[in-house]
This record gives sequence, C-alpha cells and structure tokens, in this order.
Amino acid sequence: MELYVYNTLTRKKELFKPINPPNVGLYVCGPTVYGDAHLGHARPGISFDIMFRYLTFIGYKVRYVRNITDVGHLENDSDQGEDKIAKKARLEQLEPMEIAQYYTKRYLDAMDLLNVLRPSIQPSASGHIMEQIEIVEKILEAGYAYVSEGSVYFDVLKYQNDTNKYGILSNRVIEDMLQTTRELEGQHEKRNPADFALWKKAQPEHIMRWKSPWSDGFPGWHLECTAMSAKYLGEKFDIHGGGLDLLFPHHESEIAQSVCAFGHEPTNYWIHNNMITIAGQKMGKSLGNFITLEQLFNGTHKILNKAYSPMTIRFFILQAHYRSTLDFSNEALLAAEKGLKRLLEAQRNLKKISPSKENTVNINEINQKCLEAMNDDFNTPIVISYLFEAATIINRLIEGQEKIDEKGLEALNKLFDNWLFEILGIKDELSSNMMPTIEGLVKMIIELRQDARANKDWAKSDELRDKLASLGVKIKDSKDGVSWTLD
Amino acid sequence: MELYVYNTLTRKKELFKPINPPNVGLYVCGPTVYGDAHLGHARPGISFDIMFRYLTFIGYKVRYVRNITDVGHLENDSDQGEDKIAKKARLEQLEPMEIAQYYTKRYLDAMDLLNVLRPSIQPSASGHIMEQIEIVEKILEAGYAYVSEGSVYFDVLKYQNDTNKYGILSNRVIEDMLQTTRELEGQHEKRNPADFALWKKAQPEHIMRWKSPWSDGFPGWHLECTAMSAKYLGEKFDIHGGGLDLLFPHHESEIAQSVCAFGHEPTNYWIHNNMITIAGQKMGKSLGNFITLEQLFNGTHKILNKAYSPMTIRFFILQAHYRSTLDFSNEALLAAEKGLKRLLEAQRNLKKISPSKENTVNINEINQKCLEAMNDDFNTPIVISYLFEAATIINRLIEGQEKIDEKGLEALNKLFDNWLFEILGIKDELSSNMMPTIEGLVKMIIELRQDARANKDWAKSDELRDKLASLGVKIKDSKDGVSWTLD
Repeated sequence: MELYVYNTLTRKKELFKPINPPNVGLYVCGPTVYGDAHLGHARPGISFDIMFRYLTFIGYKVRYVRNITDVGHLENDSDQGEDKIAKKARLEQLEPMEIAQYYTKRYLDAMDLLNVLRPSIQPSASGHIMEQIEIVEKILEAGYAYVSEGSVYFDVLKYQNDTNKYGILSNRVIEDMLQTTRELEGQHEKRNPADFALWKKAQPEHIMRWKSPWSDGFPGWHLECTAMSAKYLGEKFDIHGGGLDLLFPHHESEIAQSVCAFGHEPTNYWIHNNMITIAGQKMGKSLGNFITLEQLFNGTHKILNKAYSPMTIRFFILQAHYRSTLDFSNEALLAAEKGLKRLLEAQRNLKKISPSKENTVNINEINQKCLEAMNDDFNTPIVISYLFEAATIINRLIEGQEKIDEKGLEALNKLFDNWLFEILGIKDELSSNMMPTIEGLVKMIIELRQDARANKDWAKSDELRDKLASLGVKIKDSKDGVSWTLD
Repeated sequence: MELYVYNTLTRKKELFKPINPPNVGLYVCGPTVYGDAHLGHARPGISFDIMFRYLTFIGYKVRYVRNITDVGHLENDSDQGEDKIAKKARLEQLEPMEIAQYYTKRYLDAMDLLNVLRPSIQPSASGHIMEQIEIVEKILEAGYAYVSEGSVYFDVLKYQNDTNKYGILSNRVIEDMLQTTRELEGQHEKRNPADFALWKKAQPEHIMRWKSPWSDGFPGWHLECTAMSAKYLGEKFDIHGGGLDLLFPHHESEIAQSVCAFGHEPTNYWIHNNMITIAGQKMGKSLGNFITLEQLFNGTHKILNKAYSPMTIRFFILQAHYRSTLDFSNEALLAAEKGLKRLLEAQRNLKKISPSKENTVNINEINQKCLEAMNDDFNTPIVISYLFEAATIINRLIEGQEKIDEKGLEALNKLFDNWLFEILGIKDELSSNMMPTIEGLVKMIIELRQDARANKDWAKSDELRDKLASLGVKIKDSKDGVSWTLD
C-alpha cells in the first residue's frame, strides 16, 4: 500500500517517495512567540502531528523540525533617545528572549495538552543568525540580492526574469503582486516594491540586533526557514508544511531563496493545512472572536457556552480533513465532545468482552480501511467514521448480538490502540493515577446499593444513585449487572 | 531586615546589595544535555530555585538565567573517513540538536516535577556562537590569548603575571595547577599546560562546527557562560551560582575571561551549592550508584528500597543547608517523606480550625524567625524546623489545647502558604482534579458506615473501614466525628 499526499505546488495528490528512505525530513513553520497560543495554532499543530505520527507508524524515521520565530520587532521606548537607551543597564531593559521563552513555554504547554508530540528539533531564529547571514552572502554572490542603506533585499524582478518561478507555489502573477503591495517602512530603499528584506538594518530603538557585514541588524522573516531547514534536514528535503496563510509571501519567498542560494527548490512536497473560522467569520482581535487556547480549555471567552477539553478540540479538528475549512461553534464542539465520549466509552468497555469460539465480525477489514483512508492524503475523518463502526461492534458484542474469537478481540484492542491513541493521538483524559481509588470507592457504594435493593430498600437505592450522579458518577442497571461512567 | 549571603570569593557572609535595585541578575550554570538528569542535577536546581523564589518574595525583580550546555563533543563514525562523512545526506547523520533537545526536555520535565520554577531565560550555547566569537576577539585584542593551529587559547601565565588573579576563587596556586594538569588532546598546541581553549578547531569527524576567523570549530566550554551572562545580565551582574565542582577550572576561567574582555570581574557574589553523596560515597557510574531522577521517582534503581516522590526529594534537599554536604540513603529519604507528610497533613487540617475570641499562640513570631533564617544565607533547614513547630500548634489547636483568634488563624494559613508552598516550593502531590470526586465518595461511604453503627452492625462497620484502608483511605473515629487521610 502506498501513501499519496496532496502537493500544493502541483495541485494534485502524488505518490510519496522520500529522498533517502527510511529517513523523512519534515519542516513545518512554527509559532511567533510574542503572544499567547490561540485557536489558529491548534490546527497546524495537530495536522502535522498526525503526519509525523502516521509516517512514523508506517515505518519511516522522521526528523520533524518546527521553528520558533523569536526574532521579533520589540522596541525600547523611542522617546528616550538613542543615548539614554545605550546608557540603561542591561537588567533594566526589556529582554526579548525573556518574553520569547515565556510564550514558547505557554505554546508548548498548550500543545502538550492537545497531545501534540514534540518535534525532533525546535530551532529558534535568534539562535541561527550566522547560518542566515551565510545564506544572504550566497544570494548576494549569485546576484539576486542588493545592499541598500545597510539592509539587503532580494531582487524579485531579476529572479522572475531569469527563472520565471516567482508565483509557482501561490499561483500569483507578479504584476498583481506589484499592484497590491502596500507602502511599508523601508520601501524607498528597494528597487521594486515586491522585493523583500533578507537583512534589515536595526533602528536605534530596535532591541534584537546582531553584527553583520552590512549593518547591526536582524534577518528578514522568510530567511530563518531556509536557513534552519537546510541546516537540520539538508538543502533538499521531503516535506515542507504550514498554514495556507503562509503560501504567499512566506513560502513563495523561501522557494526563491533556496533556488538562488542552493540552485534548486527546497522541498519535494508542499503541504498546507486550511484555515479555521469561528461561527463563519475569520478570527481576529477586532471582531471580538479571538480565542486563546487557554480560554478554550477554561471556557472563559464570551462566545463559548462552556469549557472544551483539549481532547475535544483535537477530536473536532480531526473530524475534518486538514485541507477543508473548519468552522468552530459551540454546537459543533458539543457534537465532537459527545462523539469522542462514545468512542472512549466503547474502548473502556472492551475489557468487558470475553472471547468466544465463534467469530461474526471482521476487524481486519476495518483496519485495512483505516490504512486506505490515511494513505489517501491523511484522511482522518474517514478513519474516525470506521472507529465509530468499531464502537457499534463493541456495543453489539456486549449485548451478545455478535461474537468475537480471541484473535479478533486482540485485533479489536489493537485497532483502538493504534488508530485512536497512537495515530490520532487521542488520550483518555479521565485516566489518572487517582482512577483506581475512584473505581474502588464506586464499587463499594454499588455493593452497598445492591444490599439495599436485596432488602427492598428502594428509597436508599435511589438516594445512593442520585448522590453518585451529583458526583458525576452515572450508574446503569441492566440484566448483566451494574455499569457506571464518570463525567 | 537585611539579607546576608555567603560569598565563595571572600569566604564570608556579606550583606546583599544589588547593583541596580530592585533588579537582581542571577546566573547559574545549567546542565549539559547529552544524558539523563540525575541526582546531581537536583541539588543546584532546587538550591538556586529557593534563592530565585526568596529574592522575588522579598520584592526584587529577578532575571534568572540558567544556560543549557549543548555544544557537545559528538562525533561521526571516524572509521568512515572525511570524504564519506561529507557525502552522507544530512538526514542520515546524527543530529546533535535532536539529542540535545530530547535531553533538555527530559531535564525540564524532571525539574517541573521537583517544582523548580523555570528561569527567566535558558539560553543555549549553540545559539550564541557569534557572541562567543566576539569575546574571543576581545581577549585576543587585549593580548591574553593566542592562536595556535586554528585554535585560540587563553594565556594563563601572562594573565597571572599581570593580574595575580588566577586562583582567587578556587584558592589554587598556579604552580600546583601546572603540576596536576594531565596531558590531554591539543596540549602540544599550548604554550603552557594550564592554558585553556577559547576556540577549538574541529576535527573532520566533529559534528558541531561553526565558521570563525580562526577555523571551522566550536567554542571552549568556559566561554559560553561569560558570553551569555554578559548578553542577558550585563558585563557585571549580581550573583553567579553553580555547584562547588565548577569552582575550578570553570568559574576561575570565567573570571579570567571577564577581566580580560571587560576589564573587571563578572559578578559581585559567587554562590556555590555543596555536593551530594550516596550512602557516604561519591556518585559515579563506575561505583554502581549513579541514580537518574527518573529512577529515583520510580524506585527502579537497585540501591533504592522504594520510589521517592519528587516532593520527598525536594524536602530532603531543603532539610540541609545548601552549603552542607548531603548524604542520600533510604533511611534519610524515608524520614524526609514522613516529615513532609506531617507538615502537609497539618496544613490540610488548618481548615478544620475555627477561630476563637481568645488567642494563646504567636504566629507572627514564627514568621519572623523564618525570615531571619532565610536572611542568614538562605537557611532552609531552620525554616523547616519552625514549620514543624507550627504543625504542632495546629495539632494542639485541633485538640483544644490552644486557642487562636481570627487574625491569628489568617496568619497561620499565610505562614504555610508563604513558607511551605511559595518559598520552599513544596506542593501537595495528593491534590488533583479528581480529589473532589474522591472526597464525595468517601463521605458517602462514611455516612453509610455511620448508618451501620447506628444499627449496631459492627461487622459491617469494620468491613467498610478495612475496605477503605485497602484503597489507601484511613479513617479515624474520635469524639468529634470521623476524619480520614489518603495515602
């Protein structure tokens, strides 16, 4: 069976062939760490986590690099004037690295809660200034960049004239780009408004600055990904991922930089996750629907009816294909919460099933269909639909409507272990080191309730049932005994 | 009240006066991240966490920098020869950054479990090569370093002749150093065996390498701390900390580097934590007593009788002054576990105390004594002894042998919040989001047991008590009702 992935560059699904199997190099654009992680971070985090997990599951040795953009544009109070700033003690000044590390930790904590695996390497832009300067030098040598007033710009028109490549990823036509480019700081230094900065001279109040052959300054944003992907994955690697919003100018410019510095494009497969909307609208601070992941987990944003657990969010995101748009609403999240609960309850009920001599269900077929879905460009919603099918089978097995033999039961257990937990990366949020204690206590109370029922003390029995319910423990009487679930 | 700290440089306790109050700059040598965190990491982690917490508590704005040493000495398989190594795809090669980030995460996870706060900034050596090269250039310019076969060495004899400072921290005499220096790689390049590398030319098989004016190579180990402390705290900062094992040559060499590059010593206060022994012996891989923190928390090392929780380890370390040696043994850890349990139970029992009109206890005096102990060079064992005194008061209050008024009760609550939790950094490992459920279930069972006792069904009552005990819930009947504790 072979894996097909949708390549944004060619606009088709292509057979995935790594350059140096079994190694796979995966580079994904990571967060800018000058603010809290928000809903917009959850989707690329989870989408590429799925690819990392699945590629590993099918036997590849994946080196997954996701950068940290920490070269920010923080400035000292410019009212103070250059002299005063220079005289200020280092300790009294704002330290960008302190802010960056604070938000990096917050971002990683949120990703941990979402059960997003840590990438193999998370290099930071500020830690790779030398490597970025080297690439600027190479592009200058190749003749596709120029120095202007201490800054270095990439010469987009020359590159386009020589290679006809600017726009190959985003399908933009350069004439359109020129017309739509707004007047920004430093535009007068450029030969052409479409040119982008490889190195910027720092203004006196700019805090993050390094020495370079051109000025004390800082690298342009597009450059860090070219430098760090080349350093850790090689100048040509397998997959470059990111959000669809990064297609232009960021990824388009990365291609241009690689072509001029290394003589070829950086990657064989460009993969982009689609965007999230909230109740049909784009997320934005001005629209009042900007939700941080913390607000989502705590339910503290005004447009949320309640808190949604990290696993609810993860499951909700996986219920759509990564290339589809995805709309967040309370209704949709509630539905995801319910669906996930059903799957997890079915998985917990697995231990109640005893193998039979007969077998009336086909688990291997479900496993096969899950593989086919993932091999078709990581189609997680289809995988989830088959897991729901398996949950139905579990319920029918418990009710005695189907039979399963030992081998089948093993396959059914493995189906959930592999697909729900390992590949989809769901974890049972109820499991905790306190669970054995809770299970023991609930069992004691259920036995005491059975005593009351044996004595026909129905009032006591009901009272215990209600008290348990108020603690979130719901019990269900059936002919096979008493079962319970915890909310 | 004023804070006194023991300064290793002067061998006395000195009044602590920061350079730019209320700012305090604190630099501590962090871990080398090419192996698992072990017992030897716990003590500096916790000792300087206490200083960070206490300085913050008394009102300072602390910038705490702890470096990550990730410039390691990993080598490609040198049998392959330079050519083959160069031809190998980047992805097929060992990537030091991947290993470094793996162990950095393991280290930080262990520190999180020990409730060690994250420092403000954790800069990595590999991310600050430019800054290190700049300092090498300064020392060369000052005439205290020389280039030899692509490497740069610090000229210890010239420094000693001009300044008479080499040895001021470690009290070593240079003649002794020369005699005890072993023959190591690169010694023939040095003018003198005591000279140390500022920059080393990389051998072909050496993986971590950067361009420099002298060679493709990597910085010497002592250099990173000079570069990163200067970058984030200034060329002169308040406190430099680390383990006593770093006194020579590491810290001695840092002083030499700062004196030559900046014209003065780097810090006003040198603070060193003492070492840990295990059953009286030094810890070492050859002695079979090398214990990782994970083994300690899981009890999986052969010399451990059981697992010890991170808070037991933390409490144990705090029961000795940071400048005393500390010997780990099962007996000592068990005693710490018992002591901590006593304190935490007393703190949990606080909510059972009702304020009275009378007051027979003096909580403010205990608080005052805790402050005095911490102001005397962070004397945590004395603080703990006063908390035990407060625990005794709580027990006497519950038994009615003492009385406390509303204000006193507030002070008693605050005493534990401030000293046990905020400053000593202990957390109650039993608290979990499952605790309300457990409390509710236990309450139900205790009520059912009271019903059984009301019916004189002593057998049932005992059965429930025993079943609870088997789940770790111990109940205690007294004239005031039933109380319980969870193991």
